[in-house]
Amino acid sequence: MWEIDKKSKQPIYRQISDQLREKIMKGEYTPGSVLPTERKLADQIGVNRSTVVHAYDELTSIGLIERKRGSGTKVSTQKWGISPAGSPNWKAYVDSGAFLPPHPLIQKIHELSHNKTLWNLAGGELGPDLFPGSLLKPQYDKILGPEELFEDEDPQGYRPLRETIARHMKVTYNVDTTPDSVMITSGAQQAIYLMTQCLLSPGDAIAIEAPSYYYSLPLFQSAGLRIFALPIDEEGINPEDVKTLYQKHRIKLVFLNPIFQNPTSVSLSEKRKRDLVDMCRSLSIPIVEDDPFSLLSFEGKTGQLMKKMDESGNVLYLGSLSKTVGSNIRIGWLIAPKPVISRLMDARNQMDFGLSIFPQLVANYFMRSGKYEEHVAHLVSELKNRCDVAISILKRHFSDFLTFHEPKGGLYIWLKLKIPIQESRLFHQAANNKVILMPGSVLGASEGFIRLTFARLSKEELEKALEAFRKTLIQLI
Amino acid sequence: MWEIDKKSKQPIYRQISDQLREKIMKGEYTPGSVLPTERKLADQIGVNRSTVVHAYDELTSIGLIERKRGSGTKVSTQKWGISPAGSPNWKAYVDSGAFLPPHPLIQKIHELSHNKTLWNLAGGELGPDLFPGSLLKPQYDKILGPEELFEDEDPQGYRPLRETIARHMKVTYNVDTTPDSVMITSGAQQAIYLMTQCLLSPGDAIAIEAPSYYYSLPLFQSAGLRIFALPIDEEGINPEDVKTLYQKHRIKLVFLNPIFQNPTSVSLSEKRKRDLVDMCRSLSIPIVEDDPFSLLSFEGKTGQLMKKMDESGNVLYLGSLSKTVGSNIRIGWLIAPKPVISRLMDARNQMDFGLSIFPQLVANYFMRSGKYEEHVAHLVSELKNRCDVAISILKRHFSDFLTFHEPKGGLYIWLKLKIPIQESRLFHQAANNKVILMPGSVLGASEGFIRLTFARLSKEELEKALEAFRKTLIQLI
Repeated sequence: MWEIDKKSKQPIYRQISDQLREKIMKGEYTPGSVLPTERKLADQIGVNRSTVVHAYDELTSIGLIERKRGSGTKVSTQKWGISPAGSPNWKAYVDSGAFLPPHPLIQKIHELSHNKTLWNLAGGELGPDLFPGSLLKPQYDKILGPEELFEDEDPQGYRPLRETIARHMKVTYNVDTTPDSVMITSGAQQAIYLMTQCLLSPGDAIAIEAPSYYYSLPLFQSAGLRIFALPIDEEGINPEDVKTLYQKHRIKLVFLNPIFQNPTSVSLSEKRKRDLVDMCRSLSIPIVEDDPFSLLSFEGKTGQLMKKMDESGNVLYLGSLSKTVGSNIRIGWLIAPKPVISRLMDARNQMDFGLSIFPQLVANYFMRSGKYEEHVAHLVSELKNRCDVAISILKRHFSDFLTFHEPKGGLYIWLKLKIPIQESRLFHQAANNKVILMPGSVLGASEGFIRLTFARLSKEELEKALEAFRKTLIQLI
Repeated sequence: MWEIDKKSKQPIYRQISDQLREKIMKGEYTPGSVLPTERKLADQIGVNRSTVVHAYDELTSIGLIERKRGSGTKVSTQKWGISPAGSPNWKAYVDSGAFLPPHPLIQKIHELSHNKTLWNLAGGELGPDLFPGSLLKPQYDKILGPEELFEDEDPQGYRPLRETIARHMKVTYNVDTTPDSVMITSGAQQAIYLMTQCLLSPGDAIAIEAPSYYYSLPLFQSAGLRIFALPIDEEGINPEDVKTLYQKHRIKLVFLNPIFQNPTSVSLSEKRKRDLVDMCRSLSIPIVEDDPFSLLSFEGKTGQLMKKMDESGNVLYLGSLSKTVGSNIRIGWLIAPKPVISRLMDARNQMDFGLSIFPQLVANYFMRSGKYEEHVAHLVSELKNRCDVAISILKRHFSDFLTFHEPKGGLYIWLKLKIPIQESRLFHQAANNKVILMPGSVLGASEGFIRLTFARLSKEELEKALEAFRKTLIQLI
């Protein structure tokens, strides 16, 4: 029985969908049962067919019924469908919204990373043994009393830490900045997310290095941005390519990781840095200088920051403790003009109400104590040792299989296979041999490249991991 | 001179806008100078007028030129316009994106809050003197070594803390849950933001209590949601209203703060909780049970959680340490079905790569030590004292001016003025008298309400603040 009140304020299609829903809930129509055709139901109730279509559409959109060409309309049986018990159709809910899931291979790598018996050459982070836990621990004791901890929340970040970072930028890079131009973020990642949300709109074009770790982040696609590639050679990207992309696609922002780039470990040459800063100034395109690695130079120098060359507030600088202390601390910083900082602060306040005071206190005391520089010096020498071990093994035992450039800093060696091997075969066979690899395609490269992280394993583990990698190559070629 | 190549791959309008831009950059057209009319320029170049319109539109959108009806097209002079020095047009950038700025009165209250000589009756948080700094401090020492600190980042949150919270939910509320159903967030705020981004789409309808602190958050509007009000009486919202809103607007989610609600301090009655859980189950609408205050009962009991009554996974529970420890710690938790948690985790990973380990370690040790319960007991007795002081003053000296219900817990007293006073006059006059007030309209109430926070000031300060408030009322009536 259908009770349709044509005088009701509720549209007729909703009366139909409500009553149909009730019939399903009460079990009058059971899961899997076939519903009347649109025409038949329309005739039965005495309404237009389009009204029934509208009602069916609504119930389809919430997953209660399913419509298949040829087999008509059925009550949903799928696991996500609404059951008479009344749990919401979470599938319909979680399919809403704008966030894309991560790349399937990245998901697989994350899963495998939990297995501690595998050698991880894939992860982008420092190994656990490089975390300065024993240096950070005494810092907790020096954290001041309740008053300081409970100071008014500062949406821009804990002011003493912003002062410490402004000093760090001056001492380390000779960049003049003020605490007012510094915003503390949950790693560089949060700053990048905020920029995609606050400075760009869906449909806007941006340029990123190819390959780059940005390709492994679904956040640009999630934000509906059009992404254009800037190819890298031994001196980094070519500033002329930025101009071409601007002319063709009106790119609005350039994201770069100019020093010891992830994954190639290439640094942008001094001349190109300058040309790029000039070019982007003349085109009025902001550059995001994403700089997690500049302190990790094996030769003690990394050249100038683009931020240092920037005279017009064109360069947005991103620093981070993720690759010098650890990713778990979640401390990054953005240096940017005031209107940008204000906008990002407002947005962050809506997202998470700002950062916890605790990592900021720890970071501030660590960076002010002088222990940070000590730690970085130790870290760099350890990274260089590991890199040397990896390079010497690669030179001795892999010359038939691949080529590479020796990195001058950072965490990665970018390998180019001489013989093509299908990436998924390589990945899975390596995993069988207890090695996790990062295929280059995840990072926007064509097939035949691998990013090798030497920072996660001890020298002994590196030797074993590379042996297993070699075994994998022999098996597949 | 214009050089237009009609055979070029670059559209003609872009050739025009590029050349015009160059002319402006080179100073051929100076800021403020008038450009040719569209028709004149079209004739001059030999193109359609619409092509010039397109080129002018593009330059207008980046703020380089301005078009005013009647006065034609001019090179921009405004401070944000692109100068020949080449700094980007940040105004155009920061106007992009989806985040709305906070309510102007909220901004004003934040500004005034920095002035420590004012008495703050407006802020939503605990006062600094209630922060358990001396209890938290010893926890740092117990934080384990490097290995634990550097465990793989868990996008769902530090697992031992999730276990502690699952135990807390059982012991305190008799709610059965597992660590897998718990996600740690940067306060409840981050969970709410994630829900608006992941479970809802622009144009979706939601229901919130009126008044409620949700009105002070621009995040629902930023997400493009349609917001419908659920009025509150002395037993909280009416479940029938949810049904009506569902029938009229197909609301997809109900956000509630059922216990010691912010700002009314009203708790939803047991009967209505049950009716609401049943109603929402039958409609398959998820309820967000936002519960920062339930431990802050002056009478030692707060009734059941809706999460406890929920048998179908319909209730998404939000807990938090923000109102029992402090907002600065930024620890909240969501208890939800697995598909919801997975989706929110993926999204958060893109936003900020997850939470810092430090506040999670601190929270875990504090909540496991037994000190948390001790602290909450002390906090509640202190809050009750402050509330009693405020109530007794209000009864003695404000009966001519306003009415209120005595709260049974929480941080606020909801005042209703007997005589209408224009809110902005009241706010500014109070500030002149050194008191910061929170006008009810910011929280979605009609004019004539004020939320009084008794948790931020000592008893002595409360007395002075209320005296100044009374003086303000006398001055304005």
